[in-house]
Amino acid sequence: MEHMDAVFKAIDEHQDEFIDLLRESVAIRSVSADPARRGDCIRMSEWTRDQLRNLGAETSLWDLGKQQLSSGEELPLPPAVFGVYGRDKSKKTLLIYGHLDVQPAEKEDGWNTDPFELTEINGKLFGRGSTDDKGPVIAWIAVLKILQRLGIDLPINIKFVLECMEESSSEGLDKGLEDNIDKISDITYSCISDNYWLGRNKPCLTYGLRGICYYFVEISCARQDLHSGINGGSVPEALNDLMWIMSQLVTVDGQILIPGIAELVAPVTKEEDDLYDKIDFCVDTFKNETGSHGLISDSKKDLLMNRWRYPSLSLHGVEGAFSQPGAKTVIPAKVTGKFSLRIVPHMTPEATDKLVTSYLESLWAKRKSPNTFKITSGHGGMPWVADFRDANFSAGSKAIERVYGMTPDFTREGGSIPVTLTIQDLTKSPVMLLPIGASDDMAHSQNEKINRENFVKGMKVLAAYLFELAA
Amino acid sequence: MEHMDAVFKAIDEHQDEFIDLLRESVAIRSVSADPARRGDCIRMSEWTRDQLRNLGAETSLWDLGKQQLSSGEELPLPPAVFGVYGRDKSKKTLLIYGHLDVQPAEKEDGWNTDPFELTEINGKLFGRGSTDDKGPVIAWIAVLKILQRLGIDLPINIKFVLECMEESSSEGLDKGLEDNIDKISDITYSCISDNYWLGRNKPCLTYGLRGICYYFVEISCARQDLHSGINGGSVPEALNDLMWIMSQLVTVDGQILIPGIAELVAPVTKEEDDLYDKIDFCVDTFKNETGSHGLISDSKKDLLMNRWRYPSLSLHGVEGAFSQPGAKTVIPAKVTGKFSLRIVPHMTPEATDKLVTSYLESLWAKRKSPNTFKITSGHGGMPWVADFRDANFSAGSKAIERVYGMTPDFTREGGSIPVTLTIQDLTKSPVMLLPIGASDDMAHSQNEKINRENFVKGMKVLAAYLFELAA
Repeated sequence: MEHMDAVFKAIDEHQDEFIDLLRESVAIRSVSADPARRGDCIRMSEWTRDQLRNLGAETSLWDLGKQQLSSGEELPLPPAVFGVYGRDKSKKTLLIYGHLDVQPAEKEDGWNTDPFELTEINGKLFGRGSTDDKGPVIAWIAVLKILQRLGIDLPINIKFVLECMEESSSEGLDKGLEDNIDKISDITYSCISDNYWLGRNKPCLTYGLRGICYYFVEISCARQDLHSGINGGSVPEALNDLMWIMSQLVTVDGQILIPGIAELVAPVTKEEDDLYDKIDFCVDTFKNETGSHGLISDSKKDLLMNRWRYPSLSLHGVEGAFSQPGAKTVIPAKVTGKFSLRIVPHMTPEATDKLVTSYLESLWAKRKSPNTFKITSGHGGMPWVADFRDANFSAGSKAIERVYGMTPDFTREGGSIPVTLTIQDLTKSPVMLLPIGASDDMAHSQNEKINRENFVKGMKVLAAYLFELAA
Repeated sequence: MEHMDAVFKAIDEHQDEFIDLLRESVAIRSVSADPARRGDCIRMSEWTRDQLRNLGAETSLWDLGKQQLSSGEELPLPPAVFGVYGRDKSKKTLLIYGHLDVQPAEKEDGWNTDPFELTEINGKLFGRGSTDDKGPVIAWIAVLKILQRLGIDLPINIKFVLECMEESSSEGLDKGLEDNIDKISDITYSCISDNYWLGRNKPCLTYGLRGICYYFVEISCARQDLHSGINGGSVPEALNDLMWIMSQLVTVDGQILIPGIAELVAPVTKEEDDLYDKIDFCVDTFKNETGSHGLISDSKKDLLMNRWRYPSLSLHGVEGAFSQPGAKTVIPAKVTGKFSLRIVPHMTPEATDKLVTSYLESLWAKRKSPNTFKITSGHGGMPWVADFRDANFSAGSKAIERVYGMTPDFTREGGSIPVTLTIQDLTKSPVMLLPIGASDDMAHSQNEKINRENFVKGMKVLAAYLFELAA
């Protein structure tokens, strides 16, 4: 820890150098969703490999095979970058995950600046990938450069896994990790910087994500669509059955009506409950940002728990019914209602599927409709929760305290970051999510940015985290 | 009536001549929905005008103005054909309505023959417009030709109103009729041949059509779509409110739950009830043809009354929710549910709107949702019902008895033919719907046809009807 002041000073002094490095990476248009940018994605992987190699890391590019486009065309997947920095058997090993690809962006979408030219305005560094996720990746590289220049020995071995398909479902990554399982069998901890603070002012560490179960309820009343003039009044209509079924799933204030779901949910511990009191979160700001007409609760704790650590059920829509503007007098023959549950520990997709199916079947029996009914579930995703008291989170927390002078909030997220579970399962190591960007960074949207301050302090947090973790 | 045998004989002998005339009209691709076929539509109007003129009718083409396409382009509307045949002030005057335009058709859609080349196979004349509605129009022209050739004096004056935009909402016709109101002020009766028998074997006369009221229920929960991971559990969802509202409108067996609707419906008279006993209609055939999994009633009378003379409520769909195949984890911000009621005497759109609005508002109050709610109604259409005991129907019935040797069924239809009400209101004359095609003629679909027998007997019915009406 005695090096920290020198490290922080060097980071401050060289910040523009690392912003230039970020600028260089932003200029590579590594949009993984755009087949025309596949060459840029491959170049982005190679560029990053070169950065790590220049540091003296052992590097390799993992061939992840081909991508099959819906057109039938095949494209090479951009390789994942694997880097090993330090092989001291007496030290622990940290796996750092990040991604090098970005969401699509065009100036015409409503950007104020060229999305692929990092532009600083009032301390904000605008550019696609600035916060998601090139900024954090460059921050890691910067930390290693600084330590090297200062001649400070790395207190921990580092292995990088950096992919370039995250924005396209991480296609190929699972296979890449499994093919190289022997290279990641010695991981002690894993750290992922690919999410954001809960707000704009207070750092956080994220220890939980919800999983998901997605359902399709198909009801059919006839062989083909009917005409409501000619046939209205003669057949029990599928859409009427569906609306009724879907109206029986969740109350207006979000209570899930499926028996047994509540019993699956892990009880809230006292310690966990206490965490929520300290969290920096403003209910009114949240309400304004979503533009919602009402919230299920005005209590900060209830609202956050509803979003993060309790299951929720949302209705998404109907396939097969009339969905265009205007009026059409159709009686749809076959309609498919879609809804999903966000699941939390100790729920599993299997247990949830069973309860949902059995409840829907009992509703259907009660309905006494002559129509046909079928429920199918999509591919389920497990929830993830880490022990926020473990050594990984302690190190993260101490690092943040050192840089920001405040204890971070321990947060969860309501959505999923599937790679978190993949890495935890394959490396059998505890994973921590360590965000460095702020809630208003506009990842995936127009005018994505990272604050210069977040970027610089983020580098310091990452540096301190390495030493705390090794301590 | 003494001429009838001679007329029927001449129709039999000259049937191929009139099938050739139908063939000539089918070959004109008067697809009113296709801007590229507008020239053909105009040609079709002119061709028909020429047919009437050759008979010695006074004819004119009514300029109906321009059609504004959604592209901004303007197209001339095809003119309506007005023909006056006979001006004997001592005789009654019959208005005959028909249309000259057709639905789109391409061989590739699944036609077995060229849709625009009338082709006879096993006594069926296949071709677009053969039954809807060129067949009936040519049948009228044929009847006048035969009477002329036989030197038989027309017992009644005839006025033709033939439009070429019926398949495109009769655009321009209302204005055309209103502009020429003085020319149709002397109409005694009106007759429209633009619907079909209830089955394949027994003729019918149609005395009722349902009207329609269409509703849009808009519920909004947020300014923009939300993500079910990030926000699920925090906001009362608009689609959940909408599904509930829409599930409260009608029971699984079609009972409308809106208070007051049943009280608006005209009671069934004994005479009307008796009509249903005689109607030739097979419940099983209907079930098979719709491919429905169940029917609201197995009783012929209940089923027909539900379709024709009682109101029905159908749910059509949702705008603004996820409607594509696959899975999407959206919480839609604003959704619009669509449903309609088919209305019957003595319901009016105004009275219905009032009951629907008040019921929905009471449901919304009960829901206690913080979301915004708005109900709007589309342009309503009045139901139509004629007195099936009037002189028009008596004449039609006697004509059918003479030709088919059986009393026709007196039927209604569940849908609307708006021109019926327009003509009744503007001419202040009793209207009768006199179909000549069979239920399996496939109007609007592939392989549209009219049976040679229906076409030939249809000409005879129309001829006999003229004399019965004059008697």
